[in-house]
Amino acid sequence: MTVKPETPSGFRDYLPREMIQRQQMLDTIRRVYESFGFSPLETPAIERTDVLTGGQSSMMIYHVNLSRGAPSEQQALSLRFDLTVPLARVVSAYPNDLPQPFRRYQAAKVWRGEKPQAGRFREFMQFDADIVGSGSMLADAEIIWLMQATMAALGFSRFLIRFNSRKILNALAKRIGIDDVAGDKTKEFFRILDKLEKIEWIGVEAELRRAPDSSADVRALTLGDEAISIVRRFIEISGSDEEILAALSDVLDDDPSATQGVAELSEIVGYLIAIGLPRHNWRMDLSVARGLDYYTGPVFETTLLDVPEIGSVFSGGRYDGLVARFSNASLPATGASIGVDRLFAAMEKLGLVKGRKTVTEALIIDFVPALRGEYLKLAKELRANGIKTEIYEGHERAFKGQLSYAVLLEIPVVLILGQSEAEQNVVQIKDMRQRSQVAVTLNKVAETVKSILVGCVDM
Amino acid sequence: MTVKPETPSGFRDYLPREMIQRQQMLDTIRRVYESFGFSPLETPAIERTDVLTGGQSSMMIYHVNLSRGAPSEQQALSLRFDLTVPLARVVSAYPNDLPQPFRRYQAAKVWRGEKPQAGRFREFMQFDADIVGSGSMLADAEIIWLMQATMAALGFSRFLIRFNSRKILNALAKRIGIDDVAGDKTKEFFRILDKLEKIEWIGVEAELRRAPDSSADVRALTLGDEAISIVRRFIEISGSDEEILAALSDVLDDDPSATQGVAELSEIVGYLIAIGLPRHNWRMDLSVARGLDYYTGPVFETTLLDVPEIGSVFSGGRYDGLVARFSNASLPATGASIGVDRLFAAMEKLGLVKGRKTVTEALIIDFVPALRGEYLKLAKELRANGIKTEIYEGHERAFKGQLSYAVLLEIPVVLILGQSEAEQNVVQIKDMRQRSQVAVTLNKVAETVKSILVGCVDM
Repeated sequence: MTVKPETPSGFRDYLPREMIQRQQMLDTIRRVYESFGFSPLETPAIERTDVLTGGQSSMMIYHVNLSRGAPSEQQALSLRFDLTVPLARVVSAYPNDLPQPFRRYQAAKVWRGEKPQAGRFREFMQFDADIVGSGSMLADAEIIWLMQATMAALGFSRFLIRFNSRKILNALAKRIGIDDVAGDKTKEFFRILDKLEKIEWIGVEAELRRAPDSSADVRALTLGDEAISIVRRFIEISGSDEEILAALSDVLDDDPSATQGVAELSEIVGYLIAIGLPRHNWRMDLSVARGLDYYTGPVFETTLLDVPEIGSVFSGGRYDGLVARFSNASLPATGASIGVDRLFAAMEKLGLVKGRKTVTEALIIDFVPALRGEYLKLAKELRANGIKTEIYEGHERAFKGQLSYAVLLEIPVVLILGQSEAEQNVVQIKDMRQRSQVAVTLNKVAETVKSILVGCVDM
Repeated sequence: MTVKPETPSGFRDYLPREMIQRQQMLDTIRRVYESFGFSPLETPAIERTDVLTGGQSSMMIYHVNLSRGAPSEQQALSLRFDLTVPLARVVSAYPNDLPQPFRRYQAAKVWRGEKPQAGRFREFMQFDADIVGSGSMLADAEIIWLMQATMAALGFSRFLIRFNSRKILNALAKRIGIDDVAGDKTKEFFRILDKLEKIEWIGVEAELRRAPDSSADVRALTLGDEAISIVRRFIEISGSDEEILAALSDVLDDDPSATQGVAELSEIVGYLIAIGLPRHNWRMDLSVARGLDYYTGPVFETTLLDVPEIGSVFSGGRYDGLVARFSNASLPATGASIGVDRLFAAMEKLGLVKGRKTVTEALIIDFVPALRGEYLKLAKELRANGIKTEIYEGHERAFKGQLSYAVLLEIPVVLILGQSEAEQNVVQIKDMRQRSQVAVTLNKVAETVKSILVGCVDM
């Protein structure tokens, strides 16, 4: 007869204990993004399916429909799976209402029907920043800077932003005989390279050598010894920025795409040095590929050195084919996206999250019902002074029962006003951490509570 | 070949011009809610269909499905249509993790497949605050206070919160012979009363008198002259709080449910007077019914006196059957919900929204590419001082073209650093509103920009 109060598999709730901190995290990200001149955009969760997929079927997408749809409502609709496609739609839909460059951020949920796993959900939040309409490497350098500034503002210090260029990787693909730029084999090549951290070189080599398992298997690369050796030499290139860039021309024989990629990365490095971005937070790294198809230039990703297994928490790159689906115009763009849930999980793991159970700072005990008018006035005074206040409104009548509510929620200040206090025009103020209590006159209440809260350094 | 960059019918984008203000509005609401000790909760957009509907079919709900679902994924899923059902699920699912009372707020999108109309969308945002586990009228008075405080903080002054009690309305229903409490006829009665403002008494009377149009029409009330006259006398009761409460016992013959409702409203009125809530912002009003089924006690709604046609923007009430769907336990609850999109539309209509096109406060002109390192350092200095700053990164090379970007976006401050300025160690700072310009040394830049921004009183 009753329904089980469950979330669907792959979905989760955020109770206040997590949400209070999650929201602080979102506030911090927003503050940093806005300081870089990114403005907010909001788009619907539901989009036309052809807008999302460009007509190509996509397996992991959620379709939505009304049970009874009038014929005009039969347009196929789906839930967005990222915020980049909606951005492309927006810049195509309002060519006259948006500036160029268009610097926007968007923080929103996306949905993908992937197999649920520990820590991987089917609904998750992305926090994206993009600069549309700029082909300048200054914009790419600013995105890397934004990534560094955001991570630092969130309290991370041991993180590394690594970047590379798809132009260089395209030249590598060509060098080993994969020359269907943006085609199936190139995509497969990048997809395999992107797994280097996870499956190591031995796994990458095996996948690169793999022969087709059927005639329909158009993706298998079947690389031979010479190609394998070039790839290996390539991803092992390391050293100073200058050493890396010099070694590259050696491996790639001055391919024009590689030359351009190298010039772009050099320009970005110059900007990062001018900014004075801490050197331990960024590095050019030729093994960075990013799995997604649409990148065309620099690509970025961020790993947490103390929890590398969590993967990249903040990634992006340049994608100059942004609006191709909607028009023949070409519009350069670059940006990055935070996987909010993954990053939050990392913060929890690293002890950067303090689990507060309520926002409430002061609880007024509902001691004598006849004095409720006084409790309300007290709440008014405290709230007017910016103190998050509640009056106990549960069914416990005994003082002890009401106090245990404050203990359970770790509310730092409790106020008591009984008959004798009312007669003396005072309020008892309990500092729950110091386990001390003081009686003050009504006009001193807000001030006293504030001084207790200031003492709570971890609030 | 290309796809039309359209939103589905009934869905919309919020471009930065609207989103910047919308976010300020959300920030204000959150600040007020938190000052009342409400903590944030987040639940998934997708819920099990039976959780949402309790097994009863609901026409306006969006169903979601993956095109290929493994058998275990065949659980019917839908998008939430409000935030109250998910709240009920959460308090049922985590009985040991949540305090009682549980004061939570949630700001989130909901979806309903209603016929799109001007100003009515299929995706909209609700901002709810609820107190679960409190049967005290203090909690209902606090909800009304929260509504008043939120509206005032948003800049509204000419608004009216009207409230009534379902217990009194139930007694009225019984008095005129409709005695299926919470049944179809009672629901229909409240649904008709709720339309009083829209269709006036003449419309209400016609609907109350309506005879069944078929044997399947169980909702028709077919009220006769005597019942109609009682309803009319009832909704015309007005005057001071005391006069209203006195007149009530006359019309309702001391029905016990009415007596309890009257006692509860009296208690609430006493609290509101103790708080000193401005009298022009609230009123007991026996014609308030609210259309929703689940209310069991006080009900509240908020109208804007200058745009009454927009309907209630902030409504709620007590619903003590909250968790009935999930357990046999009974849990009292009261709360209210803002229709964010409707309220924002009202703010726009009333001129309370200033359309800013970007968050950016200062634009650095990309004048001499060789000086980009200096531009980045300048941006760093401004951002470190809390000034929202961008460097021009578009394709315009000419100064005039870059300046017109600042004009288009109404960016208040523009910074220019050319070769001669670099040699003199100064930056030209343009105040775009005053149309003035000043050259300052690098160490004075942030200070000077701040003083210009402070002068922009409407920022």
